[in-house]
Amino acid sequence: MENPVGLPVVTMIGGGQLARMTHQAAIALGQCLRVLAADPADPAAQVSADVVLGSHDALDDLRRAAAGAVALTFDHEGVPLEHLRQLEADGVAVRPPSAALHFAQDKLAMRRRLADLGLPVPDFADLSGDREQARARLVEFGEAHDWEIVLKTVRGGYDGRGVWLLDRRDAALDVFDTHPVDRPALIAESRVAMRRELSAMIARSPFGQGGAWPVVETVQRHGQCAVVLAPAPGLDDAVAAQAQQMALRLADELGVVGVMAMELFETTDGALVVNELAMRPHNSGHWTMDGALTSQFEQHLRAVLDYPLGDTSPRAPITVMANVLGARQTPTMSMDERVHHLMARMPDAKVHLYGKGERPDRKIGHVNIVGRTDDSPEAVRERAERAAHWMSHAEWTDGWDVHSE
Amino acid sequence: MENPVGLPVVTMIGGGQLARMTHQAAIALGQCLRVLAADPADPAAQVSADVVLGSHDALDDLRRAAAGAVALTFDHEGVPLEHLRQLEADGVAVRPPSAALHFAQDKLAMRRRLADLGLPVPDFADLSGDREQARARLVEFGEAHDWEIVLKTVRGGYDGRGVWLLDRRDAALDVFDTHPVDRPALIAESRVAMRRELSAMIARSPFGQGGAWPVVETVQRHGQCAVVLAPAPGLDDAVAAQAQQMALRLADELGVVGVMAMELFETTDGALVVNELAMRPHNSGHWTMDGALTSQFEQHLRAVLDYPLGDTSPRAPITVMANVLGARQTPTMSMDERVHHLMARMPDAKVHLYGKGERPDRKIGHVNIVGRTDDSPEAVRERAERAAHWMSHAEWTDGWDVHSE
Repeated sequence: MENPVGLPVVTMIGGGQLARMTHQAAIALGQCLRVLAADPADPAAQVSADVVLGSHDALDDLRRAAAGAVALTFDHEGVPLEHLRQLEADGVAVRPPSAALHFAQDKLAMRRRLADLGLPVPDFADLSGDREQARARLVEFGEAHDWEIVLKTVRGGYDGRGVWLLDRRDAALDVFDTHPVDRPALIAESRVAMRRELSAMIARSPFGQGGAWPVVETVQRHGQCAVVLAPAPGLDDAVAAQAQQMALRLADELGVVGVMAMELFETTDGALVVNELAMRPHNSGHWTMDGALTSQFEQHLRAVLDYPLGDTSPRAPITVMANVLGARQTPTMSMDERVHHLMARMPDAKVHLYGKGERPDRKIGHVNIVGRTDDSPEAVRERAERAAHWMSHAEWTDGWDVHSE
Repeated sequence: MENPVGLPVVTMIGGGQLARMTHQAAIALGQCLRVLAADPADPAAQVSADVVLGSHDALDDLRRAAAGAVALTFDHEGVPLEHLRQLEADGVAVRPPSAALHFAQDKLAMRRRLADLGLPVPDFADLSGDREQARARLVEFGEAHDWEIVLKTVRGGYDGRGVWLLDRRDAALDVFDTHPVDRPALIAESRVAMRRELSAMIARSPFGQGGAWPVVETVQRHGQCAVVLAPAPGLDDAVAAQAQQMALRLADELGVVGVMAMELFETTDGALVVNELAMRPHNSGHWTMDGALTSQFEQHLRAVLDYPLGDTSPRAPITVMANVLGARQTPTMSMDERVHHLMARMPDAKVHLYGKGERPDRKIGHVNIVGRTDDSPEAVRERAERAAHWMSHAEWTDGWDVHSE
């Protein structure tokens, strides 16, 4: 569908919640986001009028989705690079370009490039190639780090999948020895003595403009982002500025276009180490929907369209996001009833639901609480986590009894 | 389409910008707004995955749009009441109900009801029925008010259409005498000596919960809302509270469900007079999208679903909305170029475009500027109006020269 008023059409590959929320932002800009979705029930396909059904693995489907769009961008990192290179050869504006996206898809390439640029990374070892030689490298690396290591697949892992935190030789070798040959190769990294995890979200346009949101603290559970505090409470200003500058510089060096999350460890001695990169809207940026003047979704569209970037100022001294996860046990109330009760208890809670079925630990939504001037980060966090836990489990963590309301 | 996660489906009749922006809010609540639109190019039909094509005048189309929806609500006031009564007889949750909507559709009924309730209204005269008798009533009414009167059609007028501001006998009689018999009848009202226009936006749920946003000042040009200042600068707290209470009380008396705008005159002696009612999201509430914790669109959905209402707190000391109108002369730049330049000059401007073609004086979008703590209402207003004028005309009102950027 052509845009009836001559505004650009952007295609996003993938029909997940990131595309769903990008569509919300597209509407304000006079656009309708086109999504390439595998299924009409995908979160973004449920809500956009411009859905191309197909696979991100099929070049023909990607071409159909790109036809007539001003830019092609991503809801996830799973699109084969060779397809993106072909689209670029066809003249499609792939944003971020394949040459940048490569470093978000391939953790080994990312580690090497970051080390070359002098950015702080953990020690790492390449475990690809000949199996016996790789095993020998793992043993050498493990011994050098007292087996306090992490094994990761170089590509395809997310939300804790494809990541093993280890502290013993036998467990590490067991992961390596049982890793299927048909899966992406492994990389070993030293475990960092960390105080907490941070994320520096930035955006970069093709013109080269950069913009950074305040650096946030991310709280992980079971390998998944659970809570984000924006800004990171008590973070030293110089360290925050360093994180932003590292992310902006890296985006520039790699030619990133769009938003990028640089996930970081703050070490016990206050230094920064780069953990992961995501070149798309990211869980650590969901707080911006209610807590910043420009959301990461609007900013991503602005960047991929080479529009000037929006003001990233926070709208409150503290905003906390908590993810709503599918529960292991089916809650006793329907989602609709849970929404009712949450709204009754917390009229200021901003709920974002993704239209996803409830499966254990699946991200099905998030809640943002925008703090008032006097609110402590702890108080806002408690409210956000209480709200998200309620939405997941139909249980109030503070003992409130629904039936006595 | 059933909602895949069991969240409710709401149908909105009309595919205009109000439905478009309600869809944005629906997405966050895990829903997809179903719209009954006349044309797939209508603003909301461009962006929603759930579009029923048809006419709001055709009962069968209304029934198709209502099938399976938890509630039926409106983007405009044009749906024939007899159809809504039939839908209610079918068991459809029409919100606001026909019995309330009647008073938003029929200005004479509204005036009478408000007067009965003791709410402040201008003097008025019914000019329906026998033409000669009505003409005599007009002459009597005009003489009594020195011909400082307003003639309006009792139904169907909006944005200055169907409204004549008059101050002379011959002009008034000319409007009356040339008014086509097949058009809705006229009502005469006395002109109010006013300082400015205000709007009190509130919401009411079927449960009876009410919520009010701060009272705003609306600036009209050519009979159309042009600018909204939220809150109304310098408005006496007691007068503001009176306006909110009048709107909440009226909504309760009429059984309104959803958001309602009560447009008011602040008279030169500081009193309030009720002008118009709208029982739907309203231009005077667009500032809430960026300037309040809960937008009018989210609140409207919450109300029609009988969800608890959201927090209406303003997010800044002052927010100003300015409408982007189609220009009389085609601008020298495309809309896309205008967006670029606006974003370059004002990274904090929140642009909302409706996907509508540019016709003279047509509302095609709006810009919100959220003030900072130190900003004066005048400064924020100047920026909002400058931004909106730019978007309409590709001209900067402060003399900025684009070509020297």
